Amino acid sequence: MPRAAIPNLPEAYSRLERRFHDISVLGDTIRMLHWDQATMMPPRGAEARSEQLARLEVMRHERLTAPDMAGLLGDAEAGAAALGPWQAANLREMRRLAGHAAGVPEDLVAARSRASSLCEVVWREARRNSDFAAVRKNLGEVLDLTREAAAALGESLGCSPYDALLSEYEPCGNTAAIDVLFADLAAFLPAFLDDVLAHQDRAGAPVPPEGPFDIEVQRALCREMAMAVGLDFDSARVDESAHPFSSGVPEDTRITVRYREDDFNDGLMSVLHETGHAMYERGRPADWRYQPVGRARGMVMHESQSLLVEMQACRSREFYEWAASRLRRAFGGAGPAWETENLHRLAIRVEPGHIRVDADEVTYPAHVILRYRLELALLSGGLALADLPGAWNDGMQRLLGITPPNDRLGCLQDIHWYSGSWGYFPTYTLGALAAAQIFDAATTAEPSILPSLAEGDFSPLMAWLRRQVHEHGSRLSTDTLLAEATGRPLGAAAFKAHLRRRYLGG
Amino acid sequence: MPRAAIPNLPEAYSRLERRFHDISVLGDTIRMLHWDQATMMPPRGAEARSEQLARLEVMRHERLTAPDMAGLLGDAEAGAAALGPWQAANLREMRRLAGHAAGVPEDLVAARSRASSLCEVVWREARRNSDFAAVRKNLGEVLDLTREAAAALGESLGCSPYDALLSEYEPCGNTAAIDVLFADLAAFLPAFLDDVLAHQDRAGAPVPPEGPFDIEVQRALCREMAMAVGLDFDSARVDESAHPFSSGVPEDTRITVRYREDDFNDGLMSVLHETGHAMYERGRPADWRYQPVGRARGMVMHESQSLLVEMQACRSREFYEWAASRLRRAFGGAGPAWETENLHRLAIRVEPGHIRVDADEVTYPAHVILRYRLELALLSGGLALADLPGAWNDGMQRLLGITPPNDRLGCLQDIHWYSGSWGYFPTYTLGALAAAQIFDAATTAEPSILPSLAEGDFSPLMAWLRRQVHEHGSRLSTDTLLAEATGRPLGAAAFKAHLRRRYLGG
Repeated sequence: MPRAAIPNLPEAYSRLERRFHDISVLGDTIRMLHWDQATMMPPRGAEARSEQLARLEVMRHERLTAPDMAGLLGDAEAGAAALGPWQAANLREMRRLAGHAAGVPEDLVAARSRASSLCEVVWREARRNSDFAAVRKNLGEVLDLTREAAAALGESLGCSPYDALLSEYEPCGNTAAIDVLFADLAAFLPAFLDDVLAHQDRAGAPVPPEGPFDIEVQRALCREMAMAVGLDFDSARVDESAHPFSSGVPEDTRITVRYREDDFNDGLMSVLHETGHAMYERGRPADWRYQPVGRARGMVMHESQSLLVEMQACRSREFYEWAASRLRRAFGGAGPAWETENLHRLAIRVEPGHIRVDADEVTYPAHVILRYRLELALLSGGLALADLPGAWNDGMQRLLGITPPNDRLGCLQDIHWYSGSWGYFPTYTLGALAAAQIFDAATTAEPSILPSLAEGDFSPLMAWLRRQVHEHGSRLSTDTLLAEATGRPLGAAAFKAHLRRRYLGG
Repeated sequence: MPRAAIPNLPEAYSRLERRFHDISVLGDTIRMLHWDQATMMPPRGAEARSEQLARLEVMRHERLTAPDMAGLLGDAEAGAAALGPWQAANLREMRRLAGHAAGVPEDLVAARSRASSLCEVVWREARRNSDFAAVRKNLGEVLDLTREAAAALGESLGCSPYDALLSEYEPCGNTAAIDVLFADLAAFLPAFLDDVLAHQDRAGAPVPPEGPFDIEVQRALCREMAMAVGLDFDSARVDESAHPFSSGVPEDTRITVRYREDDFNDGLMSVLHETGHAMYERGRPADWRYQPVGRARGMVMHESQSLLVEMQACRSREFYEWAASRLRRAFGGAGPAWETENLHRLAIRVEPGHIRVDADEVTYPAHVILRYRLELALLSGGLALADLPGAWNDGMQRLLGITPPNDRLGCLQDIHWYSGSWGYFPTYTLGALAAAQIFDAATTAEPSILPSLAEGDFSPLMAWLRRQVHEHGSRLSTDTLLAEATGRPLGAAAFKAHLRRRYLGG
């Protein structure tokens, strides 16, 4: 990471660094405008915003595909012997990003950005009204443009259109590897879910604390918990939006959440999840802040960090030793519903449901597998958009035995497809596998992590993560980063062991 | 305004339109990030934000100063016979903007933007603590860079450094014309102020309604009043910031305000003022939305529109016929303090005070003349920054007979110098003169305007303004626009007549 260690960097490499600095700043700006769109923007600002985002995307794209880019990369690679390991990794990432950008024509980038921004706004209203028909035309435009971009990019990268889309989020991802892991999970989970539900039945249902839970109290509680994980509110804020997300820049985190008056866990766990994302961004190597190698290593690692905080750490029995008393104090709770054991059992309650972001970690993979299959079918043309609500409902029935009563609880629930994020969903479950594997390695290497969580002290966990994951940015591939941190390649074993331990008690 | 009326536009002109479209979108983006910085951004986001703004300013500047810009402008001008009047005016504005940009080196643009962003953040804290010393270093950097930019631009445009800065806000502005108008006012106002204060004394003081005034109630009231003027909240929002301003884009207005618990007029009049700005932006010719000719015609006209709404319309006796009952209802007010006549007398109360944005229209010009003289002296080097607080206080004593007790109420009160806006202040008072002249012309031409205000109906006024001012964008010079709307060049006569009528009753 030592930025000034290389005395005579090739001129071509230095020029590339300046150019990628600008590209990074454009990306930061785009993220801020997206955040504003989701949290602050009045509805009729949508068209002007989509124009802003489209032009900024084009400017970003123009820089990545400048006529002299290939020459500069070639020259820098020819002088690579003079580069240190971080610079060399940076150059490799530059080559990858430029290759991605060159694969999609500029007009298509702009059209896709514009269509996605508009569709996202229409979706927000359609979702409120549970009216899929109201957004179908916009979604159709997004899908057509996404299919076109996927075909072009796949041809350029020499992979399938779907793998091309996936690689925008996860550099090393591919359907072949996903299919193996998802098949493993699909074979394991149904019978395991039955076991868990039977185990839960034998133990009796936990007692739900009685609401309503004041939103202002929830806001304060979420801040307190996020600060325990490591967020500081001189460089972060938490707002409300239809779909929780973490955005902003490392020095200025923007987390969003939805609060429910009848359930404080929903908002709390969202904030903890998004705080996990934010901590990864804040832990990126500062010396490489505006360079490709300083970026987070793809969405699988990103999701691993959010799930590690939310699912592994903050739903652990240890964390509840500390958190339960905070919950009682915040809401003035007393009695059986507010006992630590009961609150923890509520937090790890397994129950098939319609909403992915509310799903427990046992049923969550089914939600992802459904979306993965549906987006493959929509992109290939095997499934028509008009048939999406029905196919969604059929899939939910098949995978989890429940049928959404309306599209708000069905195919309208997630922002991804409507905002143009196709090929993203698999990273959630790959991230869950990685989270289990990393948490296992961390708690083995650092025995103080779990006892510290019982005191609300995340610093041993965060120190290990920073050292083993965050500070590496994009220096290593996802596979290598994970192998160096955990001693083995990504698999489902740690995840399954974790589920057995937590949900069957052994 | 008919956008598609010209069949064979010269290719060079069409290319310029595409380029200036991008430049306009970059400007929109920069404004959004500034708004976020003032309203939403956590404090430690400042450095990353200043980086974003600096790079976007450079991108904007790069486009304005591209190597082929001079050639394109020349080619388009050679083919100007094929252009319609709007296109011709657009080309003239392109030439003007490109000339401005070419006058300042790119590095200096970036350095000035970065220094200003940082200084603005430091100022916010310094202002809170009334600690000028805490921001002096940052302000010194801004001043040095501004002086450097003014010298370069003045040389390039063939005018004085100060006129060069002024021309960034007011294309036709110059110190020679300002000095004449300000001398006229400086000769008129002191004796007039004495007359007004004596007149007020004879009438006895109005009774101030007793606070505190609930902030939530103020927020709702401000929305109601802004909607009466013409704002709709599907395309606007009102937030809070240290210094009230109007920003955003025509379809997505972002107004900010400061509310005071002890005085509802302060927030209300700020919102009405900023709504006047916003209505001008929203009335810009839609077909030319992203072109230079579609922009508002400089800051004098802009300030005329805000002051026309705030000072001319919303402090009129007619408006209070309608507004007073809303004020009584909102705050549950009853008794002598809440009578229409008394509320109106409070709204037009003249009283020398420290704060420019709180000043009445009789003393306001003194605040501006002070700042104008001080910034001329600071830029020329005749006044050292260390001596600014003292010079400020001396000037206040000389011009208004009062001395600020601290710098928060003195030279720290306004954001302008700290955020890099030098040469801006004169436009406030020029705008006040223009507002009086335009309102006089409007109410003469359209006799329904004043009676409609008494019913809370701004539509006759806004229709006239849209037709006579807003819809012309930058097609005409400020002088011509004003002469066509009012039948005469900018002068102080209408302003003085207005003051005599309102404050001396005839």
